[in-house]
Amino acid sequence: MNATSTDTPQAAPSLAPLVALLATDMEQVNARIIARMASDVPLVPELAGHLIAAGGKRLRPLLTLAGAGLAGGSPHAIGLATAVEFIHSATLLHDDVIDESKLRRGRDTANALWGNDASVLVGDFLFARAFELMVETGNLSVLGQLSRASAQITEGEIKQMTIAGVPDTPAEDYLDVIRNKTAILFAAAAASGAEVAKASRPIIEAAHAYGLQLGMAFQIMDDAMDYSLSSDDMGKNSGDDFLDQKITLPLIIAYGDGTDTERQFWQRTVGDGAFADGDFETACAILQRYDAIDRSVAKAVHYADAAETALARIADQNSANPALLDALSEAAKFAAHRQI
Amino acid sequence: MNATSTDTPQAAPSLAPLVALLATDMEQVNARIIARMASDVPLVPELAGHLIAAGGKRLRPLLTLAGAGLAGGSPHAIGLATAVEFIHSATLLHDDVIDESKLRRGRDTANALWGNDASVLVGDFLFARAFELMVETGNLSVLGQLSRASAQITEGEIKQMTIAGVPDTPAEDYLDVIRNKTAILFAAAAASGAEVAKASRPIIEAAHAYGLQLGMAFQIMDDAMDYSLSSDDMGKNSGDDFLDQKITLPLIIAYGDGTDTERQFWQRTVGDGAFADGDFETACAILQRYDAIDRSVAKAVHYADAAETALARIADQNSANPALLDALSEAAKFAAHRQI
Repeated sequence: MNATSTDTPQAAPSLAPLVALLATDMEQVNARIIARMASDVPLVPELAGHLIAAGGKRLRPLLTLAGAGLAGGSPHAIGLATAVEFIHSATLLHDDVIDESKLRRGRDTANALWGNDASVLVGDFLFARAFELMVETGNLSVLGQLSRASAQITEGEIKQMTIAGVPDTPAEDYLDVIRNKTAILFAAAAASGAEVAKASRPIIEAAHAYGLQLGMAFQIMDDAMDYSLSSDDMGKNSGDDFLDQKITLPLIIAYGDGTDTERQFWQRTVGDGAFADGDFETACAILQRYDAIDRSVAKAVHYADAAETALARIADQNSANPALLDALSEAAKFAAHRQI
Repeated sequence: MNATSTDTPQAAPSLAPLVALLATDMEQVNARIIARMASDVPLVPELAGHLIAAGGKRLRPLLTLAGAGLAGGSPHAIGLATAVEFIHSATLLHDDVIDESKLRRGRDTANALWGNDASVLVGDFLFARAFELMVETGNLSVLGQLSRASAQITEGEIKQMTIAGVPDTPAEDYLDVIRNKTAILFAAAAASGAEVAKASRPIIEAAHAYGLQLGMAFQIMDDAMDYSLSSDDMGKNSGDDFLDQKITLPLIIAYGDGTDTERQFWQRTVGDGAFADGDFETACAILQRYDAIDRSVAKAVHYADAAETALARIADQNSANPALLDALSEAAKFAAHRQI
């Protein structure tokens, strides 16, 4: 199945136009990231550098820069984008402690190399440093938005923990988890960028809506890809969520439609954590039976479409930067299109 | 030995006058703490409540209230004091993950009851909520001071981790660790209270100096008390630091003056972590031999005296609240006086 929202044959959508438009700013963000990881305590730049050098899409700081770009840019956008990436990096370090995932983005996780203690503390350092960077923008509203987002991220992660191992979790609870743990930071990243560039209230709100819907689409796709048997280009281990007893949309769909025997399988595996060889392959086969991956992708497409609707509201208000709006539109298509 | 800085017989100094003066404000802080731990995710108030209900001296919010009181108070002092306590509580939750200490303040630690995951995440929640509370004060300078302090706390804890198990650590490195991990937050608590109440710059700086010196005295005494064979009223387990291979002042003093045989003992125990029955008693006996506890207390007295010097600078500028200044002076004496 083609996961785009249109059926016209076309080149696969990508982040490339957005990345290209913001390349100069992102170079400054990367330099600022290195500069602000500096510490007299050598472990801090070492561990933080390991995480940040591992790369990743840097989608959140891109959204901050794009949000600022919608309103003509701001000298504070670089620092704010750096802060947003630090918040995200802090949550990744703390996730490693929680998931004990041995591989992230194709490299050993920081906690596998340095231990839980270092991951917790360097995460805390990056989080505190993010707030220092935000203070430097001089914008209390931005600080309020990102501190609220940070609290919501942790609420999302805690709720995710409490639904782990519960295969009959309602889809609404799953959507609530990913809204908090992922989408809110996408939203705050874009909106705070617009805000620091003194965008009008409707533009700030539309940027927030765009980021929120984009974040939902991305997380749903990420979770669906975790049930892909082929390796993916994210370096993330397929099947991690299954073995971590994480409850995500494909499983919720298949459980909802499943037979008693299949439900017993889900209960034994993601429910009780009693895994046997071949269980992941069985899980993938059951998901296939209910079209659960494609149905998850359809949900991601729904959110990506909503992100584009929010963009249209920005275009109505402000057509000053059509190339940026086009690039953001393609980013929304990309979010729900990545190959499974 | 009597650990006060004077030799005149007198009632043991205590925190009671400070607590009494600020009792009404502290009731409001306690109410605000409960109110701002609210979350739709039930585990958050449950776990945070466990930690905060456990009590403790609430010294940091007291310092914030006192700092504000030096300049006639502020309607933002309650929220700011709540934020300061949340930052401290977040570091305690994360310390539990790091130390894996099974008992804190005489109760089971949160992570022994709920697991590392919950401790990391609820700590993050409290930290983010602290920043929300600070944003509500509308004071960017206070936000800058406390975000910088938060980064320094983690740098102190990381450095503490890197000197763990290294018995020939210089005393300067230990003092640097406790300045960052403990004293800086005492300083920022007092100074930000003064700042939010619009105190003059010299008063804010003197409040910072008072808090810093008081924090040094408290931490040195806490560390010295960990080598007390008798139980203490903090509910902290005697000997925890020794078993955690933490390097503190009494050990640094005894190692510095020790014989080769004693140094081999320190290396085997706190150095290599190869503990045997009776080692803690042996450690205490060696410390006794070099008067290492009393010499540590003398160092705490030195810092407590410096705290009083800073207070005198406040009294020179502002004698509007002599009862508060007296209570802060007694708190400094208390810091270096607690019975070993």
